[in-house]
Amino acid sequence: MTDAPRPDPFADATPDIVAEAAAVFAACRHGALATIAPGDGWPQATRVGLAPVGRFRGLILVSALAAHTAALRADPRCSLLVGEAGKGDPLAHKRLTLKCRAREIFREDAEGYAVARAAYLSAQPKAKLYIDLGDFALMALAPESVSFNGGFGRAARIEGEMLAG
Amino acid sequence: MTDAPRPDPFADATPDIVAEAAAVFAACRHGALATIAPGDGWPQATRVGLAPVGRFRGLILVSALAAHTAALRADPRCSLLVGEAGKGDPLAHKRLTLKCRAREIFREDAEGYAVARAAYLSAQPKAKLYIDLGDFALMALAPESVSFNGGFGRAARIEGEMLAG
Repeated sequence: MTDAPRPDPFADATPDIVAEAAAVFAACRHGALATIAPGDGWPQATRVGLAPVGRFRGLILVSALAAHTAALRADPRCSLLVGEAGKGDPLAHKRLTLKCRAREIFREDAEGYAVARAAYLSAQPKAKLYIDLGDFALMALAPESVSFNGGFGRAARIEGEMLAG
Repeated sequence: MTDAPRPDPFADATPDIVAEAAAVFAACRHGALATIAPGDGWPQATRVGLAPVGRFRGLILVSALAAHTAALRADPRCSLLVGEAGKGDPLAHKRLTLKCRAREIFREDAEGYAVARAAYLSAQPKAKLYIDLGDFALMALAPESVSFNGGFGRAARIEGEMLAG
């Protein structure tokens, strides 16, 4: 290990790259969510169902019994990995890591909840079997930055105004 | 939110459940790794190629340019999510979250490195194109515990002696 500065492997994103990354995100219906366990601060990776609702913005439906729910209520900082690994070398396929913040959408916010519920069910129709159970909660993920990896040597960081669609 | 204790949704694992979870893990060739970013402590989810090398033990090959590599060198605590989401409801499919610790296998440890290199390439033959580049490193993931989710209502935690195969 060295303290010397490393070159940043992420190129500035071009509009074409941003559009390519946004298309990958828009097609995703699940992701791997990284959160911090409230007990011991260990990172934890768990699966979440995802409804993309805007450029790099998504809704997740979480169970109160799942580890990520307690984690996000204690610390909303999270990260979402999306993109299918496909066949062959898993690192040759496009994926995105979103650095994001989760915000719970409470049922008491009747109008906001109704919109979010409809948007989630539009992407995840099978969730109608359980979305209305009291143990489930909807959370909105808002991006702080996105790291796009389009395969070997095709990495770009998407920040600031480029996050808005 | 409440401070009342929640029921633990994870049942004690039976030998059948452990075998089922071990089979899911053994079939995986990639996963989502959760690490903690050294700069701001944010969790980050990234894709890694995986070579299972024992019950709930795996090797990952990481690039020095990837965010998880610097993170693991600063803090070896990590979590690996494996299991395909498949079609339909992404939460209906089997997956595992491993709480684990990463240990780098250095090239200076010639015999250990040769064994790990061969094991990784056996699972990931396409990696022979880049495994020997100086920027890549092999790390071993050792489990502290495993959370198995076999679909709705089928969760189990695997700990202690049940982690050994």
